[in-house]
Amino acid sequence: MAADGAHPLPTVLAVLGRGLVDPDEPALRADDAGVTRGDGCFEGCRVVVDGSGTADVAKLDAHLARMSRSAARLEIDFDAAAWRELITLAAAAWPQPGEAALKAVLTRGAGDRPTGFVWVTELGADIPRQRREGIRVVTLSRGMPVAAFSDAPWLLGGVKTLSYAVNMAAAREAQRRGADDVLFVSADDPGYVLEAPTASAVWATGRTLVTTPPDATGILAGTTQALLFDAAAAAGWRTDCRLATVAELHEADVLWLVSSTRGPVDVVDLDGTARRRVPEIDAEIRRLAGFAVPGS
Amino acid sequence: MAADGAHPLPTVLAVLGRGLVDPDEPALRADDAGVTRGDGCFEGCRVVVDGSGTADVAKLDAHLARMSRSAARLEIDFDAAAWRELITLAAAAWPQPGEAALKAVLTRGAGDRPTGFVWVTELGADIPRQRREGIRVVTLSRGMPVAAFSDAPWLLGGVKTLSYAVNMAAAREAQRRGADDVLFVSADDPGYVLEAPTASAVWATGRTLVTTPPDATGILAGTTQALLFDAAAAAGWRTDCRLATVAELHEADVLWLVSSTRGPVDVVDLDGTARRRVPEIDAEIRRLAGFAVPGS
Repeated sequence: MAADGAHPLPTVLAVLGRGLVDPDEPALRADDAGVTRGDGCFEGCRVVVDGSGTADVAKLDAHLARMSRSAARLEIDFDAAAWRELITLAAAAWPQPGEAALKAVLTRGAGDRPTGFVWVTELGADIPRQRREGIRVVTLSRGMPVAAFSDAPWLLGGVKTLSYAVNMAAAREAQRRGADDVLFVSADDPGYVLEAPTASAVWATGRTLVTTPPDATGILAGTTQALLFDAAAAAGWRTDCRLATVAELHEADVLWLVSSTRGPVDVVDLDGTARRRVPEIDAEIRRLAGFAVPGS
Repeated sequence: MAADGAHPLPTVLAVLGRGLVDPDEPALRADDAGVTRGDGCFEGCRVVVDGSGTADVAKLDAHLARMSRSAARLEIDFDAAAWRELITLAAAAWPQPGEAALKAVLTRGAGDRPTGFVWVTELGADIPRQRREGIRVVTLSRGMPVAAFSDAPWLLGGVKTLSYAVNMAAAREAQRRGADDVLFVSADDPGYVLEAPTASAVWATGRTLVTTPPDATGILAGTTQALLFDAAAAAGWRTDCRLATVAELHEADVLWLVSSTRGPVDVVDLDGTARRRVPEIDAEIRRLAGFAVPGS
């Protein structure tokens, strides 16, 4: 169950076609296209284990649906029933009550056989602080105008691929600038708000929640953002999906980065400009997204 | 030594810190950042084994220098002496006279330790035909204007990362269109010629060889292109590094895609327009790049 802080170690590993295996044993060939080409897709999910030890994988249907779309775009076979079974198996093997992070990875594999595995590990060490204190965010260009993705399916807009080297480099750039996370903007002038390396952007102006339209802009359709918008609409919020500039974000009442394991975390500093926190709105949005009030 | 055609199997595998290992055994943990994030870099090299069984890794210094630059940009430790030793060890273990393909892969690893390995395998099955017959190429947008890379080091322009999912998707798109390869163009209007998913573009007009400037445009500095330009300059060619449009390529005498294992291969069809082959120029360029005349 140990983790070394900066790099938590996986403590449960299940491999497609094999089931639970020792997570400390190597599981991939060196010529797996997942490592040689970043050629595959993944999902990151939240596991919640209740006091009786029963594990729930939040939004499992939505994650399987998105992974199926990613795999289809990559032309890699995906058997949703087998993946449901593998994810459920891995989650059930996680022994600690509370939250955990689950990752499901599908690669083109080596030879003609895709590789699939699921691991469950502790929540990222920074998540409790980020939920409590909010996050400092810098905007960085993603280098692409939103129109680039029209009629260019090979650019893999909307596909959650394993090719995240730029996302990780952007996260390091944020740390270098003293920030917790990145908000990517398009290469248009002015740039449009896209998404974070591992999260969607959502903002509130009055009783309207807004996010960036996925797919056509190249960004991922966020599963937590979708769940939140459905719940918010049912609770009387207006919801909107549209292109916006960073200037508009500065005008919004609250801005969140929203992801499956971290949940919605409010942005307290955007490009060096402090943002006022609005605890009552923030608490409502976290609750609607299925996450507890910070500190509770 | 067997290969299954579409997916050659590695037949020699050497792992950093371990040496030669069984290539059929898994070599990576499931939580290696190389697979979960495409977070690492690589080099592809040509191995030539002479009749006495002595293996030469072509341009090894240039590959080590580029890999060192990639690793530095990714902030991953890189010990050039250890890599030289590992690559030399793997190449020496390749038993067949003739050409082979070597791949050196460095990832951020799992925990705090980078992962490194080298494998040697047969040349891609398509290479002999492509050298003999030339290649059919389609241009596809890479989605980014060349200016996107200015002052945006997190976009990893010029870094040979493992995050090649878009490159592979573009290669599949080319096959779908009946072509052998892709030439990426920028999202400028009109688009500028960039590079192929795994090759540089070089073209000849009269006695001038031209290529696209690397790094500032986001493209890789090609090691074979650099060697070729040095040799061509010594042989009396003019060489030039500049932005060009696809229309200019159609005017060029010969257009090649140039890569380390395949060498220069001439383009015989660009976006459905047939190109006349110029055997005497083609043979000279291949020879200057260190590759034999096709069919010889």
